[in-house]
Amino acid sequence: MKTTKQKLIILGSGFASFSTLKNIDTNLYDVVVVSPRNHFLFTPLLPSTTVGTIEFRSIIEPVRTANKQATFYHAYCTRIDHTTNTITCKNALDGNEFSLHFDILVIGVGAISNTYGIPGVEQYALPLKELADARAIRQRIIENFERASTPGLPFEERKRLLHFVVVGGGPTGVEFAAELHDFLTEDLVDSYPAMVPDVNITLLEAGEQILNTFDAALSDYTLRNFQRQRISVRLKSQVTTVLEKELLLNDGSHVPYGLLVWSTGNTQTPLVQSLPFEKDRTSRLITDEFFHVKGFTHIYAYGDCATIEGQALPATSQVAQQEGNYLARSLNALAKNKPVQPFRYKHYGMLAYIGSNKALADLPQVKGKGFSTWLFWRSAYLTKLVRWKNKILVIFDWTKAFIFGRDASRF
Amino acid sequence: MKTTKQKLIILGSGFASFSTLKNIDTNLYDVVVVSPRNHFLFTPLLPSTTVGTIEFRSIIEPVRTANKQATFYHAYCTRIDHTTNTITCKNALDGNEFSLHFDILVIGVGAISNTYGIPGVEQYALPLKELADARAIRQRIIENFERASTPGLPFEERKRLLHFVVVGGGPTGVEFAAELHDFLTEDLVDSYPAMVPDVNITLLEAGEQILNTFDAALSDYTLRNFQRQRISVRLKSQVTTVLEKELLLNDGSHVPYGLLVWSTGNTQTPLVQSLPFEKDRTSRLITDEFFHVKGFTHIYAYGDCATIEGQALPATSQVAQQEGNYLARSLNALAKNKPVQPFRYKHYGMLAYIGSNKALADLPQVKGKGFSTWLFWRSAYLTKLVRWKNKILVIFDWTKAFIFGRDASRF
Repeated sequence: MKTTKQKLIILGSGFASFSTLKNIDTNLYDVVVVSPRNHFLFTPLLPSTTVGTIEFRSIIEPVRTANKQATFYHAYCTRIDHTTNTITCKNALDGNEFSLHFDILVIGVGAISNTYGIPGVEQYALPLKELADARAIRQRIIENFERASTPGLPFEERKRLLHFVVVGGGPTGVEFAAELHDFLTEDLVDSYPAMVPDVNITLLEAGEQILNTFDAALSDYTLRNFQRQRISVRLKSQVTTVLEKELLLNDGSHVPYGLLVWSTGNTQTPLVQSLPFEKDRTSRLITDEFFHVKGFTHIYAYGDCATIEGQALPATSQVAQQEGNYLARSLNALAKNKPVQPFRYKHYGMLAYIGSNKALADLPQVKGKGFSTWLFWRSAYLTKLVRWKNKILVIFDWTKAFIFGRDASRF
Repeated sequence: MKTTKQKLIILGSGFASFSTLKNIDTNLYDVVVVSPRNHFLFTPLLPSTTVGTIEFRSIIEPVRTANKQATFYHAYCTRIDHTTNTITCKNALDGNEFSLHFDILVIGVGAISNTYGIPGVEQYALPLKELADARAIRQRIIENFERASTPGLPFEERKRLLHFVVVGGGPTGVEFAAELHDFLTEDLVDSYPAMVPDVNITLLEAGEQILNTFDAALSDYTLRNFQRQRISVRLKSQVTTVLEKELLLNDGSHVPYGLLVWSTGNTQTPLVQSLPFEKDRTSRLITDEFFHVKGFTHIYAYGDCATIEGQALPATSQVAQQEGNYLARSLNALAKNKPVQPFRYKHYGMLAYIGSNKALADLPQVKGKGFSTWLFWRSAYLTKLVRWKNKILVIFDWTKAFIFGRDASRF
């Protein structure tokens, strides 16, 4: 006689949750996914989409067809009731509410961009976490070039429109600045030859170096590379206020800008902040090495919204993906009453693109930089891309950008 | 001694204006293009982009790089002063105003979607003339499926969300309905298997038949084809009012809808309506066979905003493209003091896609329909696509949709 399957609800569709979804055995569990995003996004290539090196649809995979036995709801979870084992959800499009019962709950809702309470950031800066963000940035770049081309515009206003500022010297900020530089020197120079001399790219970093999780020599190499590319890097620069057309720094200077991309740290979502479970001082859920939320054996948390007690893993896609794969295997084993080992992270290294066909590789065995590392960067990301479809699309996008250049149309 | 080049301003970037831009000799004229769209759009394939058979960027060509000697302003023309030969323009993005002087002016600003003054159309219906329209429609289709998937939704509300209504039985409306049908039966059925039985597509036409510019036998064939595809066609149905969730018809019936695509006739832009030149009763500018606006030898008008006196050419891309090519040749000849012949239209026939890999061809020599005509439809459009780049992209898109299906992600 077949027993009824346990109802497993997965919150989120990022690296952790999506890896679990792809590997969970739906013969063992009745799987439901709740997420305000109906696709998985391969975030390491997100900066490339802001300028059209890669198309938006090439780096996503739909949740609904990734595991056809699972049910998907395009919704936010707004409340978790651990006494009745129910969650309350709100459709992400029209706010219609509904409740779901779970036997096992997996919290993988990720994190949101941290504004650090700086006034004006939410209103005027553009984040870079989702495809819609990348599209908004791409539109704004072209719009500013078109606006700057208006005849009779005062010189200062043109300079402002063409000043592109990135806040945050982590991999996303650096890669966006690098992609923007390539777009400018390889493509926009054809469409807007008269504008290009007035363009400036500035990278603002509050700390003492950019890419501070990378080897110091690689960080310095990037800085020198950016100098050659005429990307201004301002270290120890903290933004204190963002206004509509300029931002203020802690040294008192006013910086007029045309586009402001905000790529600093993460903070927790309202859901995670509201949960009554034990958390660390940055509000992340504390779990054991099996991803059990403290005090519960049927509620799990991982990815950017959680932390394993006593371990300090970075908030990277690599960590989240390994966690997601582990949890699927672990849950599959548990349903068959097999023993489960604690999670162990294996670090494969870090990669970053820094423009002009150069990349960094900070691997456990070797530190690489330059053109050959860029080839490695491309092949590594191709290998990691989820489906064959995405690999083919990305190869085609790269070929297209190489042959035809990037498109600068606005629509 | 070289004489100074005449300043030629072209308004618009559609089939007529863009064809002139591509073929004008910039050694003879100082060319300026003013248009609120910085790309040319191959509109015959626009319905295919609403469901992702073809990607947005595959059917556009940037104005700025199409003719590198020309200057482009991303702006609307708001006023034409034929006494001082100046135009007033407004940047389409920020409203900044500027003026330009011309020696020769070409008005090719096209037309806008006609709401016929029916209340609610502007507010609730989606047009299908630009890429942004196609994107809005694509988003809405996916959104409605996601909203309809909310658990506990009343049956009537789900039916409403999944009722897709097209108003207007011309080629664009028919092709959109056909593409939507394909999307539904080939792709959405995988992502939303539980929803598909509740989906309805309705095509409303005020006249007595759909595709009334085509041969009657082809029009009837399409009607029978649509019946087999379970697309309801309601003839002699006039929309009297559009509300947020339902529309009212002249027979008194209320039709709840989830998406309403408005694809009826055209009307003239505010600029054309405001011009003091001679017009026909639908406000189109009246020109002679050389496209001179009546009474002027240095102001030309063509495409959907104009009509040649005594000739009744349809408002199609084929007509506009021939007019654009003619005017470039004509202006090139005039600058060299060569004689110019009046414009003669050559009709090559009409094509339309009607779903399930079937198409119509109404050619001067032959009437075709079905699968082999669909292959002809594809190859004809490939031949007509402006650049090699677009041809390659469209071939790739078709291949991608054939192998992987269409993407149903929302972002």
